[in-house]
Amino acid sequence: METDSCRIDTKIKTDDPELVSRSSRPEGTIVEVNGVKIGGKEVVIMAGPCAVESEEQLSETALRVRAGGASILRGGAFKPRTSPYSFQGLGKEGLEMLERARTLTGLAVVSEVMDTRQVQTVARYADMLQIGSRNMQNFPLLKEAGRTSKPILLKRGMMATIDEYLHAAEYLLSQGNTQVVLCERGIRTFESSTRYTLDLNAIPVLKQRTHLPVIVDPSHGTGIRSLVPTMARASIAAGADGLLIEVHYRPDEALCDGSQSLYPEEFDRMMTGLRKVAEAVDRSIHVL
Amino acid sequence: METDSCRIDTKIKTDDPELVSRSSRPEGTIVEVNGVKIGGKEVVIMAGPCAVESEEQLSETALRVRAGGASILRGGAFKPRTSPYSFQGLGKEGLEMLERARTLTGLAVVSEVMDTRQVQTVARYADMLQIGSRNMQNFPLLKEAGRTSKPILLKRGMMATIDEYLHAAEYLLSQGNTQVVLCERGIRTFESSTRYTLDLNAIPVLKQRTHLPVIVDPSHGTGIRSLVPTMARASIAAGADGLLIEVHYRPDEALCDGSQSLYPEEFDRMMTGLRKVAEAVDRSIHVL
Amino acid sequence: METDSCRIDTKIKTDDPELVSRSSRPEGTIVEVNGVKIGGKEVVIMAGPCAVESEEQLSETALRVRAGGASILRGGAFKPRTSPYSFQGLGKEGLEMLERARTLTGLAVVSEVMDTRQVQTVARYADMLQIGSRNMQNFPLLKEAGRTSKPILLKRGMMATIDEYLHAAEYLLSQGNTQVVLCERGIRTFESSTRYTLDLNAIPVLKQRTHLPVIVDPSHGTGIRSLVPTMARASIAAGADGLLIEVHYRPDEALCDGSQSLYPEEFDRMMTGLRKVAEAVDRSIHVL
Amino acid sequence: METDSCRIDTKIKTDDPELVSRSSRPEGTIVEVNGVKIGGKEVVIMAGPCAVESEEQLSETALRVRAGGASILRGGAFKPRTSPYSFQGLGKEGLEMLERARTLTGLAVVSEVMDTRQVQTVARYADMLQIGSRNMQNFPLLKEAGRTSKPILLKRGMMATIDEYLHAAEYLLSQGNTQVVLCERGIRTFESSTRYTLDLNAIPVLKQRTHLPVIVDPSHGTGIRSLVPTMARASIAAGADGLLIEVHYRPDEALCDGSQSLYPEEFDRMMTGLRKVAEAVDRSIHVL
Repeated sequence: METDSCRIDTKIKTDDPELVSRSSRPEGTIVEVNGVKIGGKEVVIMAGPCAVESEEQLSETALRVRAGGASILRGGAFKPRTSPYSFQGLGKEGLEMLERARTLTGLAVVSEVMDTRQVQTVARYADMLQIGSRNMQNFPLLKEAGRTSKPILLKRGMMATIDEYLHAAEYLLSQGNTQVVLCERGIRTFESSTRYTLDLNAIPVLKQRTHLPVIVDPSHGTGIRSLVPTMARASIAAGADGLLIEVHYRPDEALCDGSQSLYPEEFDRMMTGLRKVAEAVDRSIHVL
Repeated sequence: METDSCRIDTKIKTDDPELVSRSSRPEGTIVEVNGVKIGGKEVVIMAGPCAVESEEQLSETALRVRAGGASILRGGAFKPRTSPYSFQGLGKEGLEMLERARTLTGLAVVSEVMDTRQVQTVARYADMLQIGSRNMQNFPLLKEAGRTSKPILLKRGMMATIDEYLHAAEYLLSQGNTQVVLCERGIRTFESSTRYTLDLNAIPVLKQRTHLPVIVDPSHGTGIRSLVPTMARASIAAGADGLLIEVHYRPDEALCDGSQSLYPEEFDRMMTGLRKVAEAVDRSIHVL
Repeated sequence: METDSCRIDTKIKTDDPELVSRSSRPEGTIVEVNGVKIGGKEVVIMAGPCAVESEEQLSETALRVRAGGASILRGGAFKPRTSPYSFQGLGKEGLEMLERARTLTGLAVVSEVMDTRQVQTVARYADMLQIGSRNMQNFPLLKEAGRTSKPILLKRGMMATIDEYLHAAEYLLSQGNTQVVLCERGIRTFESSTRYTLDLNAIPVLKQRTHLPVIVDPSHGTGIRSLVPTMARASIAAGADGLLIEVHYRPDEALCDGSQSLYPEEFDRMMTGLRKVAEAVDRSIHVL
Repeated sequence: METDSCRIDTKIKTDDPELVSRSSRPEGTIVEVNGVKIGGKEVVIMAGPCAVESEEQLSETALRVRAGGASILRGGAFKPRTSPYSFQGLGKEGLEMLERARTLTGLAVVSEVMDTRQVQTVARYADMLQIGSRNMQNFPLLKEAGRTSKPILLKRGMMATIDEYLHAAEYLLSQGNTQVVLCERGIRTFESSTRYTLDLNAIPVLKQRTHLPVIVDPSHGTGIRSLVPTMARASIAAGADGLLIEVHYRPDEALCDGSQSLYPEEFDRMMTGLRKVAEAVDRSIHVL
């Protein structure tokens, strides 16, 4: 055990995240998802339903967000739900629907992976793997995802400090995968007028400390549809490299998160406003 | 006691804030501070040092923020400090310096009041009374300030929910003073990479629930100079009616909050960026 | 100003709380309220209604808690209420009722002071001045109370760190008043199953860092009647020097905080349990 | 899809946790771990090192906690560490050491499982599966563990509400495993004088809402060795059915969490105090 202990001791001295730190790549990282570049001058919009529910729901929503200006389609096939009795997602069937929606619209596809045993399957269908807030410190999952060659969207844990968040990203990079995008999605605080407290301070703080692109999810962050366009504008003004927006072709019928999903018309109007704010900070919205 | 109890019971039935609610004045309130209108199309910039420290410090800083585009000068003469051994402010002498700085620059002056017994004094010198975060639920102070005819800047308590904040504002209005401006200044959360967590969600939430103008203090909200310009931009994109910015002619020598105070040159640069973002959301920065 | 700045600089170097620190009085402080000693081997029970509502309510409740084993009577004459339309307390009339209840029962009386202008008045009637959670950083009030010779019950701010709490107590001691009792009363967290999160960790942490006695208010801390006896037991096991318990002779008719007030019978039962736990940690409950 | 949607809708109506609710088993559940009953009149002490580090460390520590009065040995073979460069545990080798420690001491063994793919392996060696705070909402892991016949120790997420915690336990029971013990281990708040804020309110709140046994981990909850005995006493006074205590034969050499691990002598002294408090609340400490 002596040698072993020594090895361990040496490691303990280097616990800080290094691969993700800004100093290791001052110019910043550009993550490419099916040709869409995240982290450059253009702001990338990812949009779609919370969960994949049906062929019609997904394709209709995908066509609408494509028309409105999104570049990447979001949609969960495996859903982490608080209650075991809530809709848990369509699983592989949902992934197949995402694949068809990609063919239909040309949008790249991002979808969540929750289990080390699902990583290969999701990686086969999706263009980008999402690791959700509740799994930000699911270390075996991070390691498994980090071993794929797919770009990864790592959402901030609702209870994670910036330090812990950077360490979680370091798990991914330490496995060889450098294509990682961070996503602020609201933290848990005492305030109850919003579902979470979307923490836009995280954008400039992360930008100072890491070279990875940073996007924002104002849909989960606020949990309230009417706040999403405003907080989306603020996110871009604060330097976000992209947005993750929940849109549903019929929010009132959504199986999850309907009250925070935009109607397609609202998404269109929001995009008009975002273009102006992007321009004000010398950026533009990516067009497919 | 029977009659008395009845009277009390009746009151209990109407605990909700009414005077501040959006429905009581759907068109919104415009608060006027020495001719500067807060709550209209123009975004108003208040800037200055955390504390009034000396004639030179205040006048130099005031001239610089005036030149940079501020309309109102901030500066504390009575300072709420965590430790009894920290600089507690210059008191009345500080108020006199503020008065001279107003004459020198034409800037209106906002200054904090901490004690019911100071209200009349501060009201004599300042154009706007500030009630600080730690006093948001100092109810006797709210009542006393609400009885003056001065406009009031009521900062959100670092631990206050939106509900409690609106109730605190209701205390002011219930005394007859309708000239109240709200100010998000950061809430306390588990995150420690910033001093507080500036909660920009509060802007659209407050806008929906009250007719009072809402401004943001990114200096106290973040506690970190380098984050201020970014969060100021985001605040305007999120709909803020104004900003409260700490600027010091020599931040490295400041007696308090130096590390979150902008250098005058930084303030100037920030203002250039703010004008673009204001335009992107169909507003402009007020010019004196 | 040169001399002045120097003086200030010197002060800045000594911002840490000194007078309250454990090292300045390792043996601990005993605070005496009308002969009742807080901080010694005996645990002191303070009980009574949230607010003084009427002669009958106060005297009936006082007699019941006296019989049950309380040594000090609590009751607010000036009430800090979230809404301006809630019952604000009976004021001076309430103080007079407290005085008569003291005569009737022999209980010492603790009552809250909220305004610097009330300090002398409350000090005339009460045996101990309470400074409430919302006023923990009301520095002018702390200074004014610190100049009286009355013992002071300083409640922890619901969002105050232990550091800030000790600094607040230092304000009192720096004015010459060393008769200060601290009181944990629940902090604000994300958890909503209780009104606040009663933080019993604060007891041993404070005991390590200061010589001042520490008591606990499980009534406000939980906001739920059925949790009070359990958390009271835990508080004594954790080393509390006393408890502050809300009891109302008719909780269902209380003008404030009825749902967290014990029925007199519950108070009696709780006291039986507390005596056993006190004994288990080598202490006893003070008997008048 | 029509039929499918209907089925889903029906499920949505029953999202509340039912199997874990107190009303479904008012008499309470007793969980048996190798003959040790948790949830009855006796309080069960689980103790041991944070991580299994070596044969000597584990066996020495196990013998000491066995002698001091523990009934179950804790020790992680798979460790969830914030940094990928920290000691990640000995894995299967660690499980084998735990098995030998059980043979040596007669203590039952509880050890953490982090990955769905590890469940069978850990279940082969350990008498009780631990699901850690960061995995409380790792739903695939919950399902997989719920399908085993091993008793499960489900730790509360550091940012989980009581509601979410009960839903997580419901995941386990919904798979057929009713042998579940809950464990409060500290929540994340703004307070930084302790590592987390151990929330003892959770004990009576959980006891009211669920029939599952509730234990407390004051070691992780406070992160500070000197606070552990005090908070352990308070936990039992608050009704805890057991404790999870970190003990290390040489805390200063521990590879993780040394500063919160008790020295064996401290553990012995703590046990003496716990016996008295247990008696004061009509319980006793389980003796092997």
